[in-house]
Amino acid sequence: MENCIFCKIIKGELPCYKIYEDATVIVFLDINPWTKGHCLVVPKKHFQDIFDVDEQVLKNLILVVKKISFLVKEKLGAKGVNVLQNNRKIAGQLVPHIHFQIIPRYDDKGLTMSHQSSYQGKDLEIVAKLLTPTPN
Amino acid sequence: MENCIFCKIIKGELPCYKIYEDATVIVFLDINPWTKGHCLVVPKKHFQDIFDVDEQVLKNLILVVKKISFLVKEKLGAKGVNVLQNNRKIAGQLVPHIHFQIIPRYDDKGLTMSHQSSYQGKDLEIVAKLLTPTPN
Repeated sequence: MENCIFCKIIKGELPCYKIYEDATVIVFLDINPWTKGHCLVVPKKHFQDIFDVDEQVLKNLILVVKKISFLVKEKLGAKGVNVLQNNRKIAGQLVPHIHFQIIPRYDDKGLTMSHQSSYQGKDLEIVAKLLTPTPN
Repeated sequence: MENCIFCKIIKGELPCYKIYEDATVIVFLDINPWTKGHCLVVPKKHFQDIFDVDEQVLKNLILVVKKISFLVKEKLGAKGVNVLQNNRKIAGQLVPHIHFQIIPRYDDKGLTMSHQSSYQGKDLEIVAKLLTPTPN
């Protein structure tokens, strides 16, 4: 897609530190890494997010996520990994071309998650009913 | 696996707010939700994390993640979702039974990510070489 930064990287119009490539998926280092080996698993074909991605492509992506998780554990000595996949700008998706982030962890400083939401889940039963076609 | 809280939920020994189930995957609401509809996509068979999960199970899981992402968008009016999958305690994995978290987003307060890592990625070329069998 025109003006998509990841499509430009895939076409070779922008540089990247590529660490893996197959017929449908490319993996390159995040240029603003949170930890050593922070990388992005990206389909070569343009899809915006999880809502529109092709199912076969999604399966290919997650198998590569597993493969690269092993790689950062073995080659960089990561002790764990966070896998993060943001959908839509409101969820922090910076590039509207679906991607999984792999964030290798060496200590507890690599990623901190918090929220300011006041939601406390006092309506879990109601929410569950909204999400299921028939009562359980 | 004995003493695994998710295995107990799957066996019906502990309650949950179930929203989806098929032959290999179950989805239930997080009991300490960050946002409305925050839920966990869990394989029925016990695997610890992305390093040991069966590839077919992993593919099943990610297709269910897509399905439930649609559901929270359509039924709860989410404007985006974060998909998060933590591996090992150091990465914030609280239950050692692989799961994907789906965090529906309605505003920008649902999830804040930050890090205290001092890593700035001044060695990206070296890292890329460590992770690739041959130079690109």
